[in-house]
Amino acid sequence: MPAELGADAGAAWNIVPIARIHSCFAEKFGIPRQPGLVTKSVGTLEMLPPYDRPEMFVGLDRYSHIWIHFLFHGTISEGWRSTVRPPGLGGQKRVGVFASRSPHRPNFLGMSVVRLVAIRNCGKKIFLDLEGIDVLDQTPVFDIKPYLPYSDSIADAAGSAFTTEMREPVEVGFSDQAKVFIQSYQSESGRDLLGLIWQILRQDPRPPSQKGDGREFGMMLWDVNIRWQVQGGGFFVLSCERIKAG
Amino acid sequence: MPAELGADAGAAWNIVPIARIHSCFAEKFGIPRQPGLVTKSVGTLEMLPPYDRPEMFVGLDRYSHIWIHFLFHGTISEGWRSTVRPPGLGGQKRVGVFASRSPHRPNFLGMSVVRLVAIRNCGKKIFLDLEGIDVLDQTPVFDIKPYLPYSDSIADAAGSAFTTEMREPVEVGFSDQAKVFIQSYQSESGRDLLGLIWQILRQDPRPPSQKGDGREFGMMLWDVNIRWQVQGGGFFVLSCERIKAG
Repeated sequence: MPAELGADAGAAWNIVPIARIHSCFAEKFGIPRQPGLVTKSVGTLEMLPPYDRPEMFVGLDRYSHIWIHFLFHGTISEGWRSTVRPPGLGGQKRVGVFASRSPHRPNFLGMSVVRLVAIRNCGKKIFLDLEGIDVLDQTPVFDIKPYLPYSDSIADAAGSAFTTEMREPVEVGFSDQAKVFIQSYQSESGRDLLGLIWQILRQDPRPPSQKGDGREFGMMLWDVNIRWQVQGGGFFVLSCERIKAG
Repeated sequence: MPAELGADAGAAWNIVPIARIHSCFAEKFGIPRQPGLVTKSVGTLEMLPPYDRPEMFVGLDRYSHIWIHFLFHGTISEGWRSTVRPPGLGGQKRVGVFASRSPHRPNFLGMSVVRLVAIRNCGKKIFLDLEGIDVLDQTPVFDIKPYLPYSDSIADAAGSAFTTEMREPVEVGFSDQAKVFIQSYQSESGRDLLGLIWQILRQDPRPPSQKGDGREFGMMLWDVNIRWQVQGGGFFVLSCERIKAG
């Protein structure tokens, strides 16, 4: 660990991944804008050596939620921006990057609070099962911290990145092909694909500029490509197709 | 920005300070164990170029609280540990480092939610005035994010790093020398030294192993060395002395 790097306030600091995430989100499209909104989004944190020794996790099972500090690794190639247009503000209004949770930020550091479902020892490896994640598959993780309600939960904090406008509950329909595929995929994989699709579509993942009816969208969840569109205000899943890892 | 570093989940990632903190805490002793417990602990975040352009902060004034991501720069030389003894558990019980908020952690990354009091443009520089900080003077900061109650505040999250035992309100007394010094220091500097001392002592900053009566402690707040001890269950400030920067 190059300790001398951090001694000066202006100097760069080198951080090393302690874990990587195996997430249901194989690509950026469809990822909820904040954690916790979509509870069916599950993932597993695979600890990397030497950060996978069992004693490092003693007592963590007392917590229902943890913070993960991670890298927006899928955004680095696009660079960071001084101002962004948060989707929660309709995609029109520009705000400063530091007034947003945009991934297009200096240092590309993200943080999410997620539900800690289980800590598993598998052979010599340690895995943390998570729920309510909002990060891409293969995300590098730099730290894990317990969520402490008495200091992290500030219910009366003011300000919100989102318009408070509540959406009407929307219908989510499925084609016959999609229904058959999902049933078979779920019994084979044990993954709640139906619940996850339903929760993601209810959040309306469309970019604000593409909200017209009829346009077809695709999104990858695990190894499944899901095609859907909006018809008369409701969401309709046209097809589901398994994509072989290339 | 060496983007290629972060592309692989196992690779190191280089982060650069975007700001440094000017804090009332000139040394580690006395720093509250979590932010928000001591509201009189104030600090100023000085943005570093090129992260000091006014447009990067547009909209941030709508938020009452922000997250700061920082380096535990005062702890690096001591190294990280697999297990720690959290002071909130009486300093006896060992837990895994990932089940704690200890600074002795891999990558030495910290995060705190603090109150955002003001955003100031001073000449070509930008400063953020903060309240309720728990970090050392000169701390390097890697990111600033708005605190979003709807996703960051999970009031029913389970688990706590602290014993729930409530302390009796304690008396804090001051010697005549301390009273005179504090009054003069406050009117000269505009700093609420009295309120800060009072809040810190009420938290009892003594290490669990040194809780006997009579022992004398010193702590530095800004440029003031404060000597105090516990007498009959109450705290007593013996003396305050200004230390010239060396």
